[in-house]
Amino acid sequence: LSGPVWIDGASGDRIEPTDRGLTLGDGVFDTLVAFGGVPFAGERHLARLVAQAAAIGMSVAPDHIRSGWAAVLAEARPAPAILRTTVTRGVAARGLWPVESPRPTLIVAASPWSRQLLGAPVRLVTSTIRRNPASPSARLKALGYLDHVLAAREAAEKGADDALFLTPAGRVACSTIANIFALRADRLSTPPESDGVMPGVMRALVLKKAASLGLAAGERSLALADLIAADAVFLTNSVRFLAPVVALDGAALANRGGAVVAALQQAVLAEAERECGVAPEGKLRPAETDAA
Amino acid sequence: LSGPVWIDGASGDRIEPTDRGLTLGDGVFDTLVAFGGVPFAGERHLARLVAQAAAIGMSVAPDHIRSGWAAVLAEARPAPAILRTTVTRGVAARGLWPVESPRPTLIVAASPWSRQLLGAPVRLVTSTIRRNPASPSARLKALGYLDHVLAAREAAEKGADDALFLTPAGRVACSTIANIFALRADRLSTPPESDGVMPGVMRALVLKKAASLGLAAGERSLALADLIAADAVFLTNSVRFLAPVVALDGAALANRGGAVVAALQQAVLAEAERECGVAPEGKLRPAETDAA
Repeated sequence: LSGPVWIDGASGDRIEPTDRGLTLGDGVFDTLVAFGGVPFAGERHLARLVAQAAAIGMSVAPDHIRSGWAAVLAEARPAPAILRTTVTRGVAARGLWPVESPRPTLIVAASPWSRQLLGAPVRLVTSTIRRNPASPSARLKALGYLDHVLAAREAAEKGADDALFLTPAGRVACSTIANIFALRADRLSTPPESDGVMPGVMRALVLKKAASLGLAAGERSLALADLIAADAVFLTNSVRFLAPVVALDGAALANRGGAVVAALQQAVLAEAERECGVAPEGKLRPAETDAA
Repeated sequence: LSGPVWIDGASGDRIEPTDRGLTLGDGVFDTLVAFGGVPFAGERHLARLVAQAAAIGMSVAPDHIRSGWAAVLAEARPAPAILRTTVTRGVAARGLWPVESPRPTLIVAASPWSRQLLGAPVRLVTSTIRRNPASPSARLKALGYLDHVLAAREAAEKGADDALFLTPAGRVACSTIANIFALRADRLSTPPESDGVMPGVMRALVLKKAASLGLAAGERSLALADLIAADAVFLTNSVRFLAPVVALDGAALANRGGAVVAALQQAVLAEAERECGVAPEGKLRPAETDAA
């Protein structure tokens, strides 16, 4: 079911049933893709994971996480690999009170990445489950994903690919696995964290690339009407990069902005190629082609 | 850190790092206390756990859970034991989509129960984190307890014993580990599930006992003002039974209804003694005293 796994803070390659990551969802995680054995945007992912662990009162050494990545990539490389890094509060007595001498559990698990994950079009349905901006978990990549699991099941039952979460006030938040963007003319908008949104690494990369492409890119609250009126709507995450939303609740969405979305996708892919030395699409760089 | 553990659906006494209980908080759990080797209100707990598993699309055989309880209690008995039963979606490939042939992981873990857990007074503080009634997880004993962990930490930092969750609309929901009740004259109220409340087994027992004691007991939405105006406020859960709330956000709460709360506690304790054959307080029944 999966590739290499590295576990620290646990005995062997299994997890204790008293680990608070399991008993209480007490932990955070990160997902990235490594190309040619090099994590793409690794330092951004690392910084966010360390910051999110700190936000829930856990201290994790960046070098420790780098060691886990290196151990798993030594087995997985050079094939493109999805790395999931999980940090839990570790083993503790029952109860949800602060742990006196916490020893976090750190897990790095690899699974294969395929270029087919890039850019697959998405039919979205609005979930009946609302996102809670008054929950810190909404802005963290926290382990408790049950609402996401249930919303994904609801979407699958409706023949859709993913579900869209709104806030109780009806603002657009995110999908079960991705941030969302709306393009209208030269204005690219994604909901702010205060709308219950996790600050995705791909979201940050897209905002940066969009500005460099001359778009007025920024965080702005969105309503469903903004998605319907948009020239293009797309999702972002670190595994799928940019994925166009082609339908919302059964109605087709516009694709007038498709060329801009494709340009953004190319800009991010080019950055991955520069950083990792291997193109995510599988093309080798000229230098490597020569060497091969 | 803990007592006997029974695990089914996992290899040995550890959990796979790809178990969706850990990776996605994809599961539900139950906590009960067994006295003299007999789970108190075991059938109620079992029915709720099976129903909550079904609500998230998992099928669990009640007899299977009973086997786990029996295996753990065979080691723990006759000492009073807290049994935590966890049901997860089991091991799966990454992603949060429905699992094709799920094999749930079932964990039963025992830890010691002490009579000191009974009736300890609670100083509550209102959490800055709000409860989300539009999340199905709010009505489930789901694994994702991070908001609870963070609220408990906030309460500990403020010198309190537990935190009170309100809904975004300002309605009283529950504490991090308990349901809440307010008594005013002969009217006993606890928030309805639609206010984002988990249907606690002890909550149900207290509603039943209250009716038999002549109280007008039922589900009613509560505001903070209702707690402040109450004759008594108390928390319920299956480990601590009834616990009086003595202060809210630093201000003392009334205890005019203390005798009624004590009567309810006694009624529940008497039911535990009848059902389990051993008094939770540690007194033996006359017949057993004779036999000893």
